[in-house]
Amino acid sequence: MEKLDLKVIGKIQNDDNGSKLVLNKNYIKGLTNINDFSYINIIWWFDKCDNNKSRTKLLENSPYKNAPNLLGTFATRSPERPNPIGLSCSYVTYVDYDNGIIGLAYIDADNETPILDIKPYIPSLDRVENPIMPNWCSYWPKNIEESGKFNWESVFNFWQFNSIKEFIYFTIIIKMRQIVFYLSHKLIYGLFIK
Amino acid sequence: MEKLDLKVIGKIQNDDNGSKLVLNKNYIKGLTNINDFSYINIIWWFDKCDNNKSRTKLLENSPYKNAPNLLGTFATRSPERPNPIGLSCSYVTYVDYDNGIIGLAYIDADNETPILDIKPYIPSLDRVENPIMPNWCSYWPKNIEESGKFNWESVFNFWQFNSIKEFIYFTIIIKMRQIVFYLSHKLIYGLFIK
Repeated sequence: MEKLDLKVIGKIQNDDNGSKLVLNKNYIKGLTNINDFSYINIIWWFDKCDNNKSRTKLLENSPYKNAPNLLGTFATRSPERPNPIGLSCSYVTYVDYDNGIIGLAYIDADNETPILDIKPYIPSLDRVENPIMPNWCSYWPKNIEESGKFNWESVFNFWQFNSIKEFIYFTIIIKMRQIVFYLSHKLIYGLFIK
Repeated sequence: MEKLDLKVIGKIQNDDNGSKLVLNKNYIKGLTNINDFSYINIIWWFDKCDNNKSRTKLLENSPYKNAPNLLGTFATRSPERPNPIGLSCSYVTYVDYDNGIIGLAYIDADNETPILDIKPYIPSLDRVENPIMPNWCSYWPKNIEESGKFNWESVFNFWQFNSIKEFIYFTIIIKMRQIVFYLSHKLIYGLFIK
């Protein structure tokens, strides 16, 4: 098997001011003129799932309500997958070229998450006008903008959580993220878009 | 620097019948129920650019017409980047579970390209309703469906090519791909969508 050499180009930093992507200094030139794009695709490494158990899991037991009992890993966005690669499309709130920082309205990645790549979101390549979705998730939001206001915990099956504590923790985190995401979008739209 | 272990889970195969993704046998279970999604995100490895010269390039010289003279690698979809990771959203034409094969209407990846991950295209996570784009590419197609019919060679600066031969080769390949993509879409829509 050939060996692929993956480099960490930066990290996610989450704090009270929100989320940002902090690029390693030697890659900062690669950001030139990225601020012309409103959204970027961020490719990252689910480091918490970089272990043998998570990387050999190929089936998920009913992660979502009304979905088939078994979903293959590649039919989900689960972090437990052969290569724990995350893909997030995020709204860019600012670019600080001096320090190699991109402010993000939202990213579903933990603090210190390693970043592998950044690509501009280009509708010709990334936006499907009429995707056909399975019935069980056809009522999910139709786009990222609406996604922040959606009640995401309602789509998961309760018993996917290992404990009541995990469920409560998850519910609170999701709710807080929704509020932060919703408010930051409101703010951005209020400030820049009439 | 931490070491990330990336596994090749399959390869792209291009032949006279089009493109397909051929998964390694041990990952086939991970496809369970993926055929309910019409589009998938494929994360792959630009192996032809896995060399020091391409992986240390951080600036592109005017790749596109009317764009700024310099674009950072992370502001382009160039295959020359620190981690040569490709991201393609492709229409699924069929899933052969017995052999672990996904038929693709189109993918801009060469034969034998290594595959790293497959994710279902989920509009809540992947579809931006109103992206703001730089002026220089605001006239590019608004979605993947329209992209196949677009005259892509018109957006590149001629002198990005190393030779006339390369330019002619590129033009012919793009034209042929457009025709194949357009016809396959016509066929799929004709067969399945009234």
